[in-house]
Amino acid sequence: MYTRIMKITFIQTGGTIDKDYPAGNNNHGYSFEITTPAVKRVLEKIKILDFEYEVIECLKKDSLDITDDDRQKIKETCLNNQNDKIIITHGTDTMDQTAKFLSDITDKTIILTGAMRPEKFTDSDADFNIGVAIGALCSLDNGIYVAMNGQVKPVASL
Amino acid sequence: MYTRIMKITFIQTGGTIDKDYPAGNNNHGYSFEITTPAVKRVLEKIKILDFEYEVIECLKKDSLDITDDDRQKIKETCLNNQNDKIIITHGTDTMDQTAKFLSDITDKTIILTGAMRPEKFTDSDADFNIGVAIGALCSLDNGIYVAMNGQVKPVASL
Amino acid sequence: MYTRIMKITFIQTGGTIDKDYPAGNNNHGYSFEITTPAVKRVLEKIKILDFEYEVIECLKKDSLDITDDDRQKIKETCLNNQNDKIIITHGTDTMDQTAKFLSDITDKTIILTGAMRPEKFTDSDADFNIGVAIGALCSLDNGIYVAMNGQVKPVASL
Amino acid sequence: MYTRIMKITFIQTGGTIDKDYPAGNNNHGYSFEITTPAVKRVLEKIKILDFEYEVIECLKKDSLDITDDDRQKIKETCLNNQNDKIIITHGTDTMDQTAKFLSDITDKTIILTGAMRPEKFTDSDADFNIGVAIGALCSLDNGIYVAMNGQVKPVASL
Repeated sequence: MYTRIMKITFIQTGGTIDKDYPAGNNNHGYSFEITTPAVKRVLEKIKILDFEYEVIECLKKDSLDITDDDRQKIKETCLNNQNDKIIITHGTDTMDQTAKFLSDITDKTIILTGAMRPEKFTDSDADFNIGVAIGALCSLDNGIYVAMNGQVKPVASL
Repeated sequence: MYTRIMKITFIQTGGTIDKDYPAGNNNHGYSFEITTPAVKRVLEKIKILDFEYEVIECLKKDSLDITDDDRQKIKETCLNNQNDKIIITHGTDTMDQTAKFLSDITDKTIILTGAMRPEKFTDSDADFNIGVAIGALCSLDNGIYVAMNGQVKPVASL
Repeated sequence: MYTRIMKITFIQTGGTIDKDYPAGNNNHGYSFEITTPAVKRVLEKIKILDFEYEVIECLKKDSLDITDDDRQKIKETCLNNQNDKIIITHGTDTMDQTAKFLSDITDKTIILTGAMRPEKFTDSDADFNIGVAIGALCSLDNGIYVAMNGQVKPVASL
Repeated sequence: MYTRIMKITFIQTGGTIDKDYPAGNNNHGYSFEITTPAVKRVLEKIKILDFEYEVIECLKKDSLDITDDDRQKIKETCLNNQNDKIIITHGTDTMDQTAKFLSDITDKTIILTGAMRPEKFTDSDADFNIGVAIGALCSLDNGIYVAMNGQVKPVASL
């Protein structure tokens, strides 16, 4: 059923979407850094946004490095937040795993999304994927979903 | 209720999202041209898309120039298409007007979207808006909707 | 002969490089506006610039609209400036004409450049062309030059 | 003295300018890959280029990994090429070192350049830096130069 979205809570956990490559880092020029949430830059580019939002910086990790302790922290961030419309940005490698970890949260609509190419890249899919997740929020039943590749999948189908 | 999207039909009508500024045009360097659908470029940038799609080039007009005859053409394009999941890209100025014109189509999910800034611009909202429309398709009831500014609105609320 | 560049004076006159397409303008959605100089945005993107610079906003016109009175204003802006290293950003249609108008200035190095595609576009040539003009300044003799298409041409060859 | 540039030879050695971040690489999501030369993409974006060029793929290394054997290979690539107008794209960390290694080549104009931010990034300095190097070629005497930060420096000053 259609619901007008009043407020969205975005939770940053890291992953490709957030990766940047600062000049002069001390790691042989190879490593990415994950600093400010990419979702902030995506949303700031949209001049008029017809909902309120907050961005919570929960983790800044490549998703292969996310542990179950980290997943517990993500879960508590979801549970402790008063809002029931949540989008989690996450690395693609273990996104499904985190979705399953959250699957016993049944009174909120939580969508995990991310990007195959960093938001900083000219050919990034970050804007598109964040858009898909936001569009899906307006009518999905409560539950946990993954939004990637233009498709929104319920956790039970993963 | 959630539905897995199998195929989306995109219908181009023109508007800001499609505007380009070719060098050496014959109109004093001021005018935009509307040629290939921006939605094609947006979707081609997404390396893996988990649905089929087609793009129909219906109109190539600034939306202030769209007449009721044009709207009839858009309506017939929707009705004659076998697919019931349709996204129309449209100029922002008269998007609501076209949505209302289509409002007696009740057996398809049709979402109108567009952009405040051409897809060719570095700070365009085209990728995001197309994403919102696609994300909304997965669970909306049949009907006509407008997706702009991160919000999906049913035609009855316009 | 090689000279280390200490300071560059940029003079904005308008043209395609500066064109923007603001949402909600009052001219049927067709017209560009020329506001802040594109060269400012190009240079601000370069994190470390090893010279000083200033940007003078002289004209904001499509180059087909530039009159000889305007060209006189450009010439006086060049002559009155203490700096002898000047880059003028200009529309492409009458760039050569303005170069010839300035050709009796013999004690400064003045390079005209611009873009085929607005700096705001994802596929703009603005950054590249500004770069070519700056690179040429380091060793050219005094005189008037046009830098377009990766080539720097003395006014006498136009 | 001004020379019209007929042909430029670009030599790829790697470095930040060339770095890409392919999805699904096997190195924990952290590592860049260096594949096709960024200079190709920069030049293809410029619709009209008023000189001929070739791009030689010599090395694909982070510049901290470039050895003196590699530098010898770069030198031989310069010496064996019939063209005397050469631009080398190179990582920033050891660009000066390679310039010095080449400094006994006195019958060609060779400019080393690169980028602080990969060409694939929205805020890259690649287009600008390639432009600076090309602009400088038109009037520099034979010798080895480094073009970074908007400045062209002879090897003797490094």
